[in-house]
Amino acid sequence: MTGLEGVGGCGGENSTVVESREWVMSAYAAEGVPTSDHLKLRTTKLSLDANSIPDGHVAVELLWISVDPYLRTRMTGHDDGLYFSQFALNEVITAFGVGRVFLSKNGKFSTGDIVINPFFPFAEYCIAPPTFLRVIDPTAGIELPAYLSSLGVPGFAAWVGIEVLGNPKPGSNVFISAAAGGVGIFAGQLAKLKGCRVVGSTGTDEKVKLLKEEFGYDEAFNYNKETDFDAALRKYFPNGIDLYLDNVGGKMLEAVLNHVNLHARIPICGMISQYNQIWTEREGVRNLLNMVGKEVRMEGYLVGSYLDRFDDFTKEMETYTKEGKLRSKHKIYCGIESFIESLGSMFTSSNIGKVVIQVKP
Amino acid sequence: MTGLEGVGGCGGENSTVVESREWVMSAYAAEGVPTSDHLKLRTTKLSLDANSIPDGHVAVELLWISVDPYLRTRMTGHDDGLYFSQFALNEVITAFGVGRVFLSKNGKFSTGDIVINPFFPFAEYCIAPPTFLRVIDPTAGIELPAYLSSLGVPGFAAWVGIEVLGNPKPGSNVFISAAAGGVGIFAGQLAKLKGCRVVGSTGTDEKVKLLKEEFGYDEAFNYNKETDFDAALRKYFPNGIDLYLDNVGGKMLEAVLNHVNLHARIPICGMISQYNQIWTEREGVRNLLNMVGKEVRMEGYLVGSYLDRFDDFTKEMETYTKEGKLRSKHKIYCGIESFIESLGSMFTSSNIGKVVIQVKP
Repeated sequence: MTGLEGVGGCGGENSTVVESREWVMSAYAAEGVPTSDHLKLRTTKLSLDANSIPDGHVAVELLWISVDPYLRTRMTGHDDGLYFSQFALNEVITAFGVGRVFLSKNGKFSTGDIVINPFFPFAEYCIAPPTFLRVIDPTAGIELPAYLSSLGVPGFAAWVGIEVLGNPKPGSNVFISAAAGGVGIFAGQLAKLKGCRVVGSTGTDEKVKLLKEEFGYDEAFNYNKETDFDAALRKYFPNGIDLYLDNVGGKMLEAVLNHVNLHARIPICGMISQYNQIWTEREGVRNLLNMVGKEVRMEGYLVGSYLDRFDDFTKEMETYTKEGKLRSKHKIYCGIESFIESLGSMFTSSNIGKVVIQVKP
Repeated sequence: MTGLEGVGGCGGENSTVVESREWVMSAYAAEGVPTSDHLKLRTTKLSLDANSIPDGHVAVELLWISVDPYLRTRMTGHDDGLYFSQFALNEVITAFGVGRVFLSKNGKFSTGDIVINPFFPFAEYCIAPPTFLRVIDPTAGIELPAYLSSLGVPGFAAWVGIEVLGNPKPGSNVFISAAAGGVGIFAGQLAKLKGCRVVGSTGTDEKVKLLKEEFGYDEAFNYNKETDFDAALRKYFPNGIDLYLDNVGGKMLEAVLNHVNLHARIPICGMISQYNQIWTEREGVRNLLNMVGKEVRMEGYLVGSYLDRFDDFTKEMETYTKEGKLRSKHKIYCGIESFIESLGSMFTSSNIGKVVIQVKP
């Protein structure tokens, strides 16, 4: 029932000791996609006994773990412009996950509760403090991986960018780059739900089709084919751009600044096109003066600064999901051992939707 | 008394006709500083008779006219990124000015009232509609040119940038470029009045001295001598930058983005270093990704969008001025004929403070 059957208990008669595999940061990867040179899977023995759990803590069996681009930026070993803290060497890395409470020494959590946590160890089992731990209602009719996508980091990043910083109005002209990625698919749907006209850019014709047919985008274009971004934006935004959710930076951002309307907003969620260069080799944006004439607001953000709005976000997204107004799409990798492969997949345009690992079937 | 004695009246016995010199946009200047090829001074005869003044209008004798960088951007004949409307060819240009009411056909204004208006014709006399016209209290003990500097466009631009968009706190680290210019001298003083630590960049050692000794800047540096902006900012901002009022753009903006603190604000007032190039030849800013990690808000603005706050601004600045807490500095050119020279002076680093023309001594 708990998935612990057959796992070697080797303590006294009341003890439960499990073998837990976990991902350790062995060496930083300054460039390129991290490999087994940098990330090591190791097996530890973990006692889930009441005696082994500190007061207030809970023992958790991980079910799903989220694989997001920001994890990459915590593995460089140097400051890359995002200023995220780096994972400590030879320590277990952390990630957003969904788990099941195995044993609780905290009145707020009971055995069997499904919980989410932005900072779970990337492991099969763990002893977790209650900070950031939140119980999911399994009767809500929402599949668990949705809590890592529409209701997790990418959904929250989309919501903060569109609703908090973007202030969309019915009829606003909204552009979203990396539109078929984890953030983009939700950002586009949220903007549509607000009555906007939404256009996305993405890297394959298959994704263009998907954005228009499954996720309700009004238009989408393949930036690998329509490489004159200025011409593409002139075509798709005859009335200019009111809101641009930037996931890529560089030349696309520069092109957008030639098509902004008065008081346009540009929330910057990330700039994945720029992550693999040092900053002096990145593409310069030459037309920032347009921000003055059009009174544009450009704002970088990290979801961690908006955690006071997480409940508002959750309520809204749960409602949309139950009403069938919000679709998710997951690329599921099986088993904790698939982490390196799943991480690498985010940098090759090979996935559609949100990348997650199913730790336990 | 009105300055009209001796000006040729040539109508009936109750009529007053004046000769008024005025500046006309004769040809656009795409590049460089406008000359007499582009701006022509012509003399017209203007009747200031009650019969010649439309109902609700007033006849005004101009006393002071403001010369600001934005005037240049309305003379290019092409879209330059600021999107200001261009002055119409062969029409009188307009500017911010202070005048004296000669005759009024509007109950809100009386003969002898001192009035200001952001859109006076650049002329010695005019018939003005009441829109935007505001009466100045001459007993307030504030010299008239101050209404074109601390209480005019540059003061308002400084106030919007620092107080509305910049949200400075006591102890905030504030950086201001073009610090000895019309906007910079007030921006620095406003930030100091809010308890900030203020550093400015400017183009000569004389101005560095002036900023520190007369305008209360904590530090200032000569960007023509300390040409490694990154090193300069590291030196002057050991604790990083919380607020940067950008007047210049380009390399200075890029350097600032390497020293921003979490939630730094960058109101963009203008980018005078970039005005004379077409956008594809302007300097690209390569490190915008830093805006994500530091959650920086960058916002272009034009004072015209904040006119609903002009009264708040005026009250605050008048109070500071009367209390001796705010100093102005003017570079005064004499006579309407000095316009071309005064306009050109803004692009040579030769002035200190706000450029104004005294139309009538």
